[in-house]
Amino acid sequence: MSTALSTQIQLAQRPVGWPTPDDFQTAEVVYEAPATGEVRVRNEFVSVDPYMRGRMNDVRSYVPPFALGETITGGAIGRVVVSAAPELPVGTLVLHQHGWADVVQADASTFRAVPEVPGLSSSLRLHILGMTGLTAYVGLTAIAGLKPGDTVFVSGAAGAVGTAVGQIAKLLGAGRVIGSAGTPEKVALLTEKYGYDVAFNYKDGDVRAQLAAAAPEGIDVFFDNVGGDHLEAALDVFNDGGRAALCGAIAGYNTTDRTPGPDNLANIITRALTLKGFTLAAYLGLAPEFQEKMATWFAEGRIAYDETIVDGIENTVDAFLDMMRGANTGKMLVRIAPAEDAAETA
Amino acid sequence: MSTALSTQIQLAQRPVGWPTPDDFQTAEVVYEAPATGEVRVRNEFVSVDPYMRGRMNDVRSYVPPFALGETITGGAIGRVVVSAAPELPVGTLVLHQHGWADVVQADASTFRAVPEVPGLSSSLRLHILGMTGLTAYVGLTAIAGLKPGDTVFVSGAAGAVGTAVGQIAKLLGAGRVIGSAGTPEKVALLTEKYGYDVAFNYKDGDVRAQLAAAAPEGIDVFFDNVGGDHLEAALDVFNDGGRAALCGAIAGYNTTDRTPGPDNLANIITRALTLKGFTLAAYLGLAPEFQEKMATWFAEGRIAYDETIVDGIENTVDAFLDMMRGANTGKMLVRIAPAEDAAETA
Repeated sequence: MSTALSTQIQLAQRPVGWPTPDDFQTAEVVYEAPATGEVRVRNEFVSVDPYMRGRMNDVRSYVPPFALGETITGGAIGRVVVSAAPELPVGTLVLHQHGWADVVQADASTFRAVPEVPGLSSSLRLHILGMTGLTAYVGLTAIAGLKPGDTVFVSGAAGAVGTAVGQIAKLLGAGRVIGSAGTPEKVALLTEKYGYDVAFNYKDGDVRAQLAAAAPEGIDVFFDNVGGDHLEAALDVFNDGGRAALCGAIAGYNTTDRTPGPDNLANIITRALTLKGFTLAAYLGLAPEFQEKMATWFAEGRIAYDETIVDGIENTVDAFLDMMRGANTGKMLVRIAPAEDAAETA
Repeated sequence: MSTALSTQIQLAQRPVGWPTPDDFQTAEVVYEAPATGEVRVRNEFVSVDPYMRGRMNDVRSYVPPFALGETITGGAIGRVVVSAAPELPVGTLVLHQHGWADVVQADASTFRAVPEVPGLSSSLRLHILGMTGLTAYVGLTAIAGLKPGDTVFVSGAAGAVGTAVGQIAKLLGAGRVIGSAGTPEKVALLTEKYGYDVAFNYKDGDVRAQLAAAAPEGIDVFFDNVGGDHLEAALDVFNDGGRAALCGAIAGYNTTDRTPGPDNLANIITRALTLKGFTLAAYLGLAPEFQEKMATWFAEGRIAYDETIVDGIENTVDAFLDMMRGANTGKMLVRIAPAEDAAETA
């Protein structure tokens, strides 16, 4: 009765360029009853994120590469269904990093209980109330040193991080906030829902020209999720002393060529700019401050978000690939249905 | 008797690509007796610096472009020869920014008296004891946050700034210090005279490969005077959390094409790097701290320097062009002989 079948997605081979379904494999794992100290968790939502593409390569980075033939790790939220650890009783909502699986079983210390909020989808812990929101907050504050009145440009602004950045920038006192996105619908959402003052479709034409038109007074802060032509365009219009928080470079994630960088890096010197790459690990100390502010903003109804939800662990790879192609607005998530067999959960 | 003839070098037209002598013109200026509050100064040394190339273009930068048909401004040191300002009597040694001239006359407030040190060439105020040394110090400390034990890479290390950077880095506790230069003689000087642990000739082959070989443990700090392939090479070998002080990009100063940047900017994100351009104006507050440390180091005989001296204001353009081509070791200076006609100075 306490045996469970888990479906897990693994990396079968390292993608070259754009990943394809062949780069992944599905494993069926059978869990026996948890050993003392372990819990079994059935996920409610599993996160697919741009940074995961980097971990599929065997290159040095701030996180080690995914191992071939092992389940892809990453953020997920679920509920304890079998417990052999008194600190995490059955029913506890838990965040964890066990990744692309419908059911996981591991030591209780690898799960973190999160408070239950009635009426709030647990999925929000994977984005606006979780790491995604914290990434936006850290990038704007600790990395880019946002000051009241600053003009801010956000590339890839309709993604999970970008939608958070625009709103948080405004709440922290930014002046003009400019965003780019890849479809007319996303561009409309940026100004209608996410607090952007102006937005443009980077597929409509030269990013340099569009940003220059959108930022006649220049920009002070650049929050970059895209890299490439967006970084080049930002360097063109930076005001003196400008600061870039480099969070992602999705434009280059699936290229196999070595793509040359911007032709205007000399502006870093002549305008005394700072470009700073960052990863959240070094800034987790800002989490309490972020949680406190975000809880207030959220309670006041000042935070909007979107989710693009795909059902079923078997569709995780498709969700990931769609996200890489920009099919999502806001956060891309995989939803796991509750177990049909109630016996399995007890 | 108090009339003086001054030879001054002006910008005649904006250079396209490499400057040529045709881009400059010589003006003969006749100074009448100084008005009240003015002094006349005969220069001893005039500075030619890489950053001046940028000011020859009509583009936005931290300093405005040189005006056509006006004398090229920049650092110089000279001695008051006629004074109508009691605070700067005849004989006072003064630093100023009036630039490429043998004699200048202006309001006393545009000159700064500097202490006379017996046995010390006044030229040192234009480099190791002046802005050049301060640039090295600020770049290493305030910009790159040098920590004891850091591995440091300096591009264009045999120039005026680079020779100062290597020594100051060591004096501030750096571990391995690596430099690049453009001739075998300069490479030898770096390790024999300027405290570099290892140096290579960037004309000998691929900078990426040479730096990787010189920095098997990676680098923590990059002090960049060159840009281009040197920045790309540094990005390849940066350790996590590395910091670049971008001081100059001489590789691109005379190009007319828009040259693409490094192909590995994504390392800024994956290694959490900081790239920071800087100009001295914002950091002049560090001058007293620098002067104090440098005076001690200098008195202890721990500071080496080289000067490449060209005689005669009429050779200033050649000195500038030679410096841009890397003909100098250490600081390139134009020396002005004392006036032959004693009457002119009284």
